[in-house]
Amino acid sequence: MSDVIRETVNRLLDRINAISDPGPGFTRPSYSALESKAHDIVAEEVEALGMTVSRDAGLNLFARLPGEDRDATPLFIGSHLDTVPMGGAYDGQAGVAGAVALVAAFVKSGRKPKTDIILTVTRAEESVWFPVSFIGSRGLLGRLEPQDLEARRADTGRTLADHIRELGGKPEAVPEGAGFAPANFIEFHIEQGPVLDDAGEAFGIVSAIRGGLRYRNAVIEGTWAHSGGAPREARSDVVFALSDLVVRLDELWGQMLDEGKDIAVTVGRIDAATPEHAFAKVPGRLEFCIDLRSVDDTALDRMDALLKQEIAKVEAKRGVRVKLGTQSRSTPTVLSNNLGDKVEEAARALGIEPRRMLSGGGHDAAAFALAGWESLMVFIRNWNGSHNPDEAMDPEDLIAAVRVIHKAWS
Amino acid sequence: MSDVIRETVNRLLDRINAISDPGPGFTRPSYSALESKAHDIVAEEVEALGMTVSRDAGLNLFARLPGEDRDATPLFIGSHLDTVPMGGAYDGQAGVAGAVALVAAFVKSGRKPKTDIILTVTRAEESVWFPVSFIGSRGLLGRLEPQDLEARRADTGRTLADHIRELGGKPEAVPEGAGFAPANFIEFHIEQGPVLDDAGEAFGIVSAIRGGLRYRNAVIEGTWAHSGGAPREARSDVVFALSDLVVRLDELWGQMLDEGKDIAVTVGRIDAATPEHAFAKVPGRLEFCIDLRSVDDTALDRMDALLKQEIAKVEAKRGVRVKLGTQSRSTPTVLSNNLGDKVEEAARALGIEPRRMLSGGGHDAAAFALAGWESLMVFIRNWNGSHNPDEAMDPEDLIAAVRVIHKAWS
Repeated sequence: MSDVIRETVNRLLDRINAISDPGPGFTRPSYSALESKAHDIVAEEVEALGMTVSRDAGLNLFARLPGEDRDATPLFIGSHLDTVPMGGAYDGQAGVAGAVALVAAFVKSGRKPKTDIILTVTRAEESVWFPVSFIGSRGLLGRLEPQDLEARRADTGRTLADHIRELGGKPEAVPEGAGFAPANFIEFHIEQGPVLDDAGEAFGIVSAIRGGLRYRNAVIEGTWAHSGGAPREARSDVVFALSDLVVRLDELWGQMLDEGKDIAVTVGRIDAATPEHAFAKVPGRLEFCIDLRSVDDTALDRMDALLKQEIAKVEAKRGVRVKLGTQSRSTPTVLSNNLGDKVEEAARALGIEPRRMLSGGGHDAAAFALAGWESLMVFIRNWNGSHNPDEAMDPEDLIAAVRVIHKAWS
Repeated sequence: MSDVIRETVNRLLDRINAISDPGPGFTRPSYSALESKAHDIVAEEVEALGMTVSRDAGLNLFARLPGEDRDATPLFIGSHLDTVPMGGAYDGQAGVAGAVALVAAFVKSGRKPKTDIILTVTRAEESVWFPVSFIGSRGLLGRLEPQDLEARRADTGRTLADHIRELGGKPEAVPEGAGFAPANFIEFHIEQGPVLDDAGEAFGIVSAIRGGLRYRNAVIEGTWAHSGGAPREARSDVVFALSDLVVRLDELWGQMLDEGKDIAVTVGRIDAATPEHAFAKVPGRLEFCIDLRSVDDTALDRMDALLKQEIAKVEAKRGVRVKLGTQSRSTPTVLSNNLGDKVEEAARALGIEPRRMLSGGGHDAAAFALAGWESLMVFIRNWNGSHNPDEAMDPEDLIAAVRVIHKAWS
């Protein structure tokens, strides 16, 4: 059985990652032709196993493997195949490869799983492309609003509806959902953090997913000036203002962790290098984004309030104006304790004691949990971080996790 | 006489500023066809006054007005016509308009100046385009090296020699200089700072020019990571690292000012927004530049040493690598006290008491001073900073300064 799992995992990763915009790393934008092509490979693979593929209005892919008890709550299992720009080889791909390997192991052995298993490959999980989170999974769950379809992709400037239609979907039917009753959902995914690698553990069971609070298009406006001519006290320098703000956020982050609150603070996409900038100019405008994450909604609210206090101080001190722009938010989510126990039991039967842990990033599994499904993630050890070309994982760790789910559903 | 000066100043500013890349602001790159076209307008204007135009190998423009005493040390007067990208209407242009107005006033009155006056319009003063300072003036003074001609323009990637040749110059002859004996040089220029505006004074006499110490292509390298997955202590976040560094430089800047040292610190052109950046990523690389300015070379050296100490601390604290890249430097310069006294005396005769002040920015006048000329700048009050589209000046202030030089050479 492990041979089928191993061969399937490795072949799927190779075939999917052969499809990408030119490197470095892997780039398959959400609702791009490249994402569709990656889905088609999965379709080809499971059709070769004798399974039938279907797609919903939003082009999520499903393939059902009948179980012994057709009336029992089925297991949906899978992940996504879009990537961030210049992303890695495993974020999304590993979960799909693991899920295909799971059904392949059942099919090749001729043994049915306890319940129906529905391979589930979602669309558009990475929200860097459209400013809407978990588009594919929320769509199939009937939790997208018609106006979400009007969101525009960052690079093409075209709407989500346009992109879905272009690839053969039916955007107008997406808000209705795919019509599944709440069931079980499991997603294999690389950890995207160092916890498992530092502990020397192949995989872990995720008990909760951090939510996020983001300002994707924040701006600081100051006053342009000659770098040699403007006295220190007369400047309204946006780089000094941002630096003051970031250093304070770092201090507040440390304080909240010391108080036992879960929070992560990231400031990124700083752009003070447009053509109006020059080394001989005091910078008068910059753009940036802020990303706060926590398993605790009140911690997000608290850091957001502190952020606004610090902004008021920096504005007064530096003579600048900070515009945070639109806030977007995703909700922290507790995952299924029942499924967690079931997976833990199977692991123990195989001589493994997986830890329970947090997810820092948002995932489709959060959308399923929020829709009332029993939803679980299994994290696979990885290193070199994530969302970058160097993202690394040992397929053997994923294979071990697939064996555990196979055991739990045998 | 003031009518000739007023009409000439206003007409020249209008005609020169009609020549620009599309806005906002004014963009005439160094050694571009646009800069040549602006020079041609000056040529047309002074030929209409009966003067003869010549150009040296580096395409600086000269037009000589004979004085009463042909053997006395002549006065070279002028400025430049290139701009930073999206620059203002006066940095350079005001000095050329004032110099043309000065010779026009003598020609139209039929009275000769005391000495020969050579209108001097330099090339390539703004060093954002080529990484070489004061190309035009240093070229005419014989103070460029052959390898300087191999510097590449930031936007075209082509060499200085290429650009000079394309516009009709002789790059190979530039290092020889234009062959003038050291003489007097005066440059009208907007202050690019708030001192005169705050004091309510139309113009001031510049006694020294700050030098600069720059790292134009500095980089911080950290580790890319998922913004929700990487624990605080495991991050090597380049934005936090840069912020630490900038806040410390700001503190050190304040301390050096408190000690009575002249220094200005600017950090700019921060780029953490290339396609590999995303709001969900801990940033792993950014580019920036540092610009230090002072009238005191030892203050530049001291701040440079402190900068390097702080970098070592930030590298250790944040687990990042800071690469400053190549340092470029311009020397602080004392201007001519003799010429300053002569101008002050003429101003006093007209009922004005101009202040002596510092220049924060480097200027062609510094190159003349370093080559052993008696070199002076007269600063014109301006507001809205400089090197930006909103740069503002009252032409009447320039006209008042031109009248003073006219008086001094009458």
